[in-house]
Amino acid sequence: MSQQQAQKQPNKKFKSAISPTREEDFPEWYQQVIKAADMAENAPVRGCMIIKPYGFALWENMQRVFDGMIKKLGVENAYFPLLIPLEYIAKEAEHIDGFAKECAVVTHSKLESDGEGGLKPAGELAEPFIIRPTSETIIGESFSKWINSYRDLPMKLNQWCNVMRWEMRPRLFLRTSEFLWQEGHNAFATAEESNADARLMVDKYREFAEDYLAIPMIVGEKTADERFPGAIATYTMEAIMQDGKALQAGTSHDLGQTFSTAADITFQDQNGDNKRAWTTSWGISTRLIGGMIMSHADDDGMIMPPRVAPVQVAILPIVKGDDNDDLFAFCEKIKDRLAEKNIRVKFDDSDKRSSDKMWATIKQGVPVRVEIGGREMEEGKLTYVPRDLGRDGKQTLEVDQFVASIEDILDRIQQSIFDRAKSRMKDQMREVDNLDDLHKIFVDAEPVLVMMPTSLLEDPKFEAIKKEFSIKTCCMPFAHNGEKVMVGKSY
Amino acid sequence: MSQQQAQKQPNKKFKSAISPTREEDFPEWYQQVIKAADMAENAPVRGCMIIKPYGFALWENMQRVFDGMIKKLGVENAYFPLLIPLEYIAKEAEHIDGFAKECAVVTHSKLESDGEGGLKPAGELAEPFIIRPTSETIIGESFSKWINSYRDLPMKLNQWCNVMRWEMRPRLFLRTSEFLWQEGHNAFATAEESNADARLMVDKYREFAEDYLAIPMIVGEKTADERFPGAIATYTMEAIMQDGKALQAGTSHDLGQTFSTAADITFQDQNGDNKRAWTTSWGISTRLIGGMIMSHADDDGMIMPPRVAPVQVAILPIVKGDDNDDLFAFCEKIKDRLAEKNIRVKFDDSDKRSSDKMWATIKQGVPVRVEIGGREMEEGKLTYVPRDLGRDGKQTLEVDQFVASIEDILDRIQQSIFDRAKSRMKDQMREVDNLDDLHKIFVDAEPVLVMMPTSLLEDPKFEAIKKEFSIKTCCMPFAHNGEKVMVGKSY
Repeated sequence: MSQQQAQKQPNKKFKSAISPTREEDFPEWYQQVIKAADMAENAPVRGCMIIKPYGFALWENMQRVFDGMIKKLGVENAYFPLLIPLEYIAKEAEHIDGFAKECAVVTHSKLESDGEGGLKPAGELAEPFIIRPTSETIIGESFSKWINSYRDLPMKLNQWCNVMRWEMRPRLFLRTSEFLWQEGHNAFATAEESNADARLMVDKYREFAEDYLAIPMIVGEKTADERFPGAIATYTMEAIMQDGKALQAGTSHDLGQTFSTAADITFQDQNGDNKRAWTTSWGISTRLIGGMIMSHADDDGMIMPPRVAPVQVAILPIVKGDDNDDLFAFCEKIKDRLAEKNIRVKFDDSDKRSSDKMWATIKQGVPVRVEIGGREMEEGKLTYVPRDLGRDGKQTLEVDQFVASIEDILDRIQQSIFDRAKSRMKDQMREVDNLDDLHKIFVDAEPVLVMMPTSLLEDPKFEAIKKEFSIKTCCMPFAHNGEKVMVGKSY
Repeated sequence: MSQQQAQKQPNKKFKSAISPTREEDFPEWYQQVIKAADMAENAPVRGCMIIKPYGFALWENMQRVFDGMIKKLGVENAYFPLLIPLEYIAKEAEHIDGFAKECAVVTHSKLESDGEGGLKPAGELAEPFIIRPTSETIIGESFSKWINSYRDLPMKLNQWCNVMRWEMRPRLFLRTSEFLWQEGHNAFATAEESNADARLMVDKYREFAEDYLAIPMIVGEKTADERFPGAIATYTMEAIMQDGKALQAGTSHDLGQTFSTAADITFQDQNGDNKRAWTTSWGISTRLIGGMIMSHADDDGMIMPPRVAPVQVAILPIVKGDDNDDLFAFCEKIKDRLAEKNIRVKFDDSDKRSSDKMWATIKQGVPVRVEIGGREMEEGKLTYVPRDLGRDGKQTLEVDQFVASIEDILDRIQQSIFDRAKSRMKDQMREVDNLDDLHKIFVDAEPVLVMMPTSLLEDPKFEAIKKEFSIKTCCMPFAHNGEKVMVGKSY
């Protein structure tokens, strides 16, 4: 990248930091944003990813926030085994169909020499295990032991862990064979409670996604064919990406008595009668990071929502000549003042060129970039550039004023990227009342999601349209009381 | 348990809450303490455990503290794949020997019907994977890509994750096929730096264990035969349990150039010369929870060190009659005042009997139990019982006074259980200068660890004694400059 380009940012007349741009090739742009921000990369293991420190710091912030939210609801964290005995999976028929095609099977307990300098599996296990694709079956076994009386209910457990489902076409964060997530598993005495819980949890997901990740969501129920294997209802939050595809971003399942029947989860009620429990499960994953990228990032790279950004403020000294000790001390002091206010701040005192530091900050999507040169220092001032507005939002402030208003500055950015995504989402929605109009939208290849009457799902022509354009039913939004269904292309 | 027993605690004349006692059957006492505190249980998966909410809350507190410590050292968290290709393991010969005998091997990618109503593995993988027993090999591959210049060094990465090593004789927390841990992996430009780092990390472990878990440690170097497979030096912290056995509680390895050679981790130094990096790795695990139990718990159950205790203060209302609304409101208010001071406090407003609540609190090892009855409430007072002293430490205080001094009360308990463990450890140490004396100690079956001159390791008679009593060399303590070695029975 030339010096001239480096001075201008973001400005359509100049080459963008990410190539290709979103318009040129959205999927490739996505990969390049991740690479430029140094968030993750493909692992040398089929379909798996390595989450690099900058990406993992984002995940840690997300975990901390959401973990606090569920603890307030009385959910407790626990840890269940990675390996699930085959017989557990076999207990629930729909569940088998859902996960048997893509699971990692452990069959041996050691390695031995293959006689040619290599190794081969040995010590075949009497009973194979699968690596958990999700843990309803094994947690159900524990619930069956732990739940005996109505006093034991509700029981609300969660684990933050890794799961595996082989993916044929892996994409970083969106679809990887191994991914990190939280899986919550709750049990209740009545059908009403479990259904209310499944709805509550998807609303908590929405709150988390909208308030912290700045991604507006459409919340509703999945159509029967899109339900989790074994669920009687699956609730989902769906986001719309900049390319007009929907992203299923978090789901919550009312499992009815499917798993309590398979695992025999029963309890004595207040009258001493034996009753079967009702359960839910709910999960969000590292996929949300993919959602943030495709919601907020631009042709210059990532844009981090301030509330979960690994670095909220980056301080870059604009060095001149060799003696920059005073400038560095000045920056260091501002860093300390921000850190005292619990702002996640980084001072880049490396010997990289100022323009390289600036572009790294832009590509990593740091919400606020602070630039301080000799003149600013002398005047007790600093210049800051908010990532969402770029040079258009550039301001020079007294240091005291900046430190006093940093929370407001970050809040403004948080709100602004949410509003931007929300307004975009509105533009990406169409509404039709017949299938001919639906067909036309996809013939015209409009990058949009379409809301249509739910009754049209039963029209045989709808199946044909689904196949023709590889579209899906995303959800029946609560906002429309199930009378409409959102359809379109989907991740 | 009778009401009479319930009123007395802890008092040798009365039956203890845990049966058997430590003296009667230490290993079984250990299992019963875990069960009574509801911390974990055996999973229905060969050698694995389920960490229950109370045990997991302890692990979360431990993680939060230690994670903060390593981040201050510049360590960044990341996440690497669970599965390791066979060829990676095969690259490092000593490493193969160390882990090949006990690993979980993934050979298939799906399940299919076995024709008899069951399932069988299908979709055999071209290349099997093993579930990580530790991640030096796969992280080494990334280091090889990411480290190119001296500017990239040092590189310090850590992951909190699950690992697997089949265990033939599993014991909760101490030795399970799957366990949770952190594994740190650092790379440096010079041998001096990597050795200093390995020593620094074991000292951080000691600091964490002593200051937070209240377990005094003996820190030193492992003898060559006890080194991590592939390491040029392994540093360890060893604790002595109440039964006189040592527990290896955390290790830090100077890997020299073993893994940088296997994975080809090289960099250009300041002069443009190509150099090979030097690496370290370091880990602590859920095993530390076993160490806390065997260090602190007594015949009435667990004793939690306040700084990591899931619940620091338990408030128990002593109810009388049916109308306890005022009493509950009084307790609730004290709870809120403590919570405001960031004390982890629990108010037990369940309808269990007061004596059951009291015993649950004792068995869970809650550092401070507060009991409030009608009279206390009227006087604006409360009675508290510190878990370490039991009824002997019982005090009645004004509520304000208690709230104002709760940090001091918790600090006193933290210090007291550390001092007690330290004084016990001192009593459990013997020193000999010849092998005959060493032999006599184990013939007499003294439950102790023995410090002896390191030079005696070369005497062939030592090998015979090791075998005869199943003892091990635990470490050559730094405090003795490697001139002495600690030997004895070990977990």
